[in-house]
Amino acid sequence: MATIKDVAAEAGVSVGTVSKVLRQVNVKEKNYKKVMDAIEKLDYRMNAYAQVLRTSRTFTIAIIVPDLTNPFFCALVCYVEQILGAIGYRLLLCNSQYNEGREKHYIEMVRQNMVDGLIALSYANLEEYEKIDFPFVSIDRNFGNHVTCVSCDNEAGGRLAAKVLLEKGCRKPVYLHNGVRSGDIRKRWTGFKSVFDEAGINVKRINFGNETTLTNTRIHLIGEELERLVSSDAFDFDGIFTSSDVVALVVKKKLEQLGFAIPEEVQLIGYDGLREMNIGDYYVSTIVQPVKNIAMACVENLLNQIDKKPYQKRIRLSVSFGDGGTTK
Amino acid sequence: MATIKDVAAEAGVSVGTVSKVLRQVNVKEKNYKKVMDAIEKLDYRMNAYAQVLRTSRTFTIAIIVPDLTNPFFCALVCYVEQILGAIGYRLLLCNSQYNEGREKHYIEMVRQNMVDGLIALSYANLEEYEKIDFPFVSIDRNFGNHVTCVSCDNEAGGRLAAKVLLEKGCRKPVYLHNGVRSGDIRKRWTGFKSVFDEAGINVKRINFGNETTLTNTRIHLIGEELERLVSSDAFDFDGIFTSSDVVALVVKKKLEQLGFAIPEEVQLIGYDGLREMNIGDYYVSTIVQPVKNIAMACVENLLNQIDKKPYQKRIRLSVSFGDGGTTK
Repeated sequence: MATIKDVAAEAGVSVGTVSKVLRQVNVKEKNYKKVMDAIEKLDYRMNAYAQVLRTSRTFTIAIIVPDLTNPFFCALVCYVEQILGAIGYRLLLCNSQYNEGREKHYIEMVRQNMVDGLIALSYANLEEYEKIDFPFVSIDRNFGNHVTCVSCDNEAGGRLAAKVLLEKGCRKPVYLHNGVRSGDIRKRWTGFKSVFDEAGINVKRINFGNETTLTNTRIHLIGEELERLVSSDAFDFDGIFTSSDVVALVVKKKLEQLGFAIPEEVQLIGYDGLREMNIGDYYVSTIVQPVKNIAMACVENLLNQIDKKPYQKRIRLSVSFGDGGTTK
Repeated sequence: MATIKDVAAEAGVSVGTVSKVLRQVNVKEKNYKKVMDAIEKLDYRMNAYAQVLRTSRTFTIAIIVPDLTNPFFCALVCYVEQILGAIGYRLLLCNSQYNEGREKHYIEMVRQNMVDGLIALSYANLEEYEKIDFPFVSIDRNFGNHVTCVSCDNEAGGRLAAKVLLEKGCRKPVYLHNGVRSGDIRKRWTGFKSVFDEAGINVKRINFGNETTLTNTRIHLIGEELERLVSSDAFDFDGIFTSSDVVALVVKKKLEQLGFAIPEEVQLIGYDGLREMNIGDYYVSTIVQPVKNIAMACVENLLNQIDKKPYQKRIRLSVSFGDGGTTK
């Protein structure tokens, strides 16, 4: 395994300079690049145990996600681990399974200094988060002005979906969603609605229930609910926008089963940008969240907090449209 | 948060009895059940920091997987985390990205007592694994008699795929695979072949290249290779078995694009049991690996090693067939 001396020799700098880069102390831009290139070339990893003994840090970050079986959360964890691994940090994985008790437990663990910082994608509105006084980045959910919140522009995402559907000829749009989620995610609806309002087109919204967890059973119920709407002639739409790709896929399958042609009769746009097997085609046309950029923004911000450097409190990332064949 | 006293009160036993259960010391079957029920009801979590101070343990397990974007590895990690979380253990996630250097680094970390044990799904044939003298469970890959290996019965999986295809009328079978993987996974082919050999039916095998990593680029190449086979009339099969569901999905899409009717003209069986979005339908008909059982077997075996209790060295789990619509 490469040592710090090997890195110094490869970079043509002193061991002290390498050490500074590793400890994120300011060094000359030129030397920083040399050292980072050498680290990458030699696949150098810091000796974690020695670090803990030398510093008060554990060089471990915890991430709380609600459900790792959801491909979006899985991709997020994957990128965070990759980015942390490259700079000698470890990732403790905390899968809350949408359980408040579990989330509380994990927060307590961080409080007890078992890790240096926390990234959380919370689905529980826990006051514990608001009281956090250690390095912490929240994804999507806003826990007040003192907590960093990284999110995508949900309102722009809703507007983008509406613009695409409008351009492609939809005149009877509907937003299908499940779960009462955090304030920011609700903006997908307000953004979507605003575009059709401006165009003078009536837009509907249907809530498939307030349960956020998308288990197999829940998904089955969404399909049944949709079937009821169709059979009672309450389904008269030519453009659908859903709160997530998981919901969009259920809707697509059920409508096709009921004889609707997609995208010819009904166009469909989901949210998240999920791909089959995580690497293939988009499941459906979708508003793509930049998962890798979210992961990078979280890690960078958290490290700045840990190193007591300046950091932003609000980070808002852009979304884009991905064609998955369910739009014309 | 529930304390050990709350658990004792709920279970109607002494704090000492709860403590014994938590430390995995033998207690009466009846009391064990009472305590476990109370732990579940109260969602009791052991105070991790206090434990580390009290014992020499870190109550942390590391898992090495080659690629978290692969839904099979993702599901495995998810279940391992769930099972560990329920008994007060934490999970350190190590995503090797098929990189030997990263795997070595993670092994070194475990050696340095940063964690109590290691579960690894290795794609690198590292001698470091053979030398491991701490609690360690290997999935699929056999690192010698002293290392626990948990695997599914790959030969039975291959035989099962062949039996299904044979029963459903296939007479021109082929095995499509990618990557030169560990000895045990090769048995999917030997099992598949043996059934057709016995039936006196000729069976082909096509290797899509020795690269195991299934990136977007690799998947694209598999599609191109298949297209070449078809256009050169070298593709004359009515039953396909693939080494993984990821490969099966590429094959399905490409063949459909080329005008083949699946399952009418060509039937297709993959391997792993992956579902759309991890919770929906199977992507393709498939040999289902019992991911949850694999996770449970790994954790149970590792804890026995940590607690210096007797443990098995070879654990072989059964597979089953899952109908995903690509067989008749």
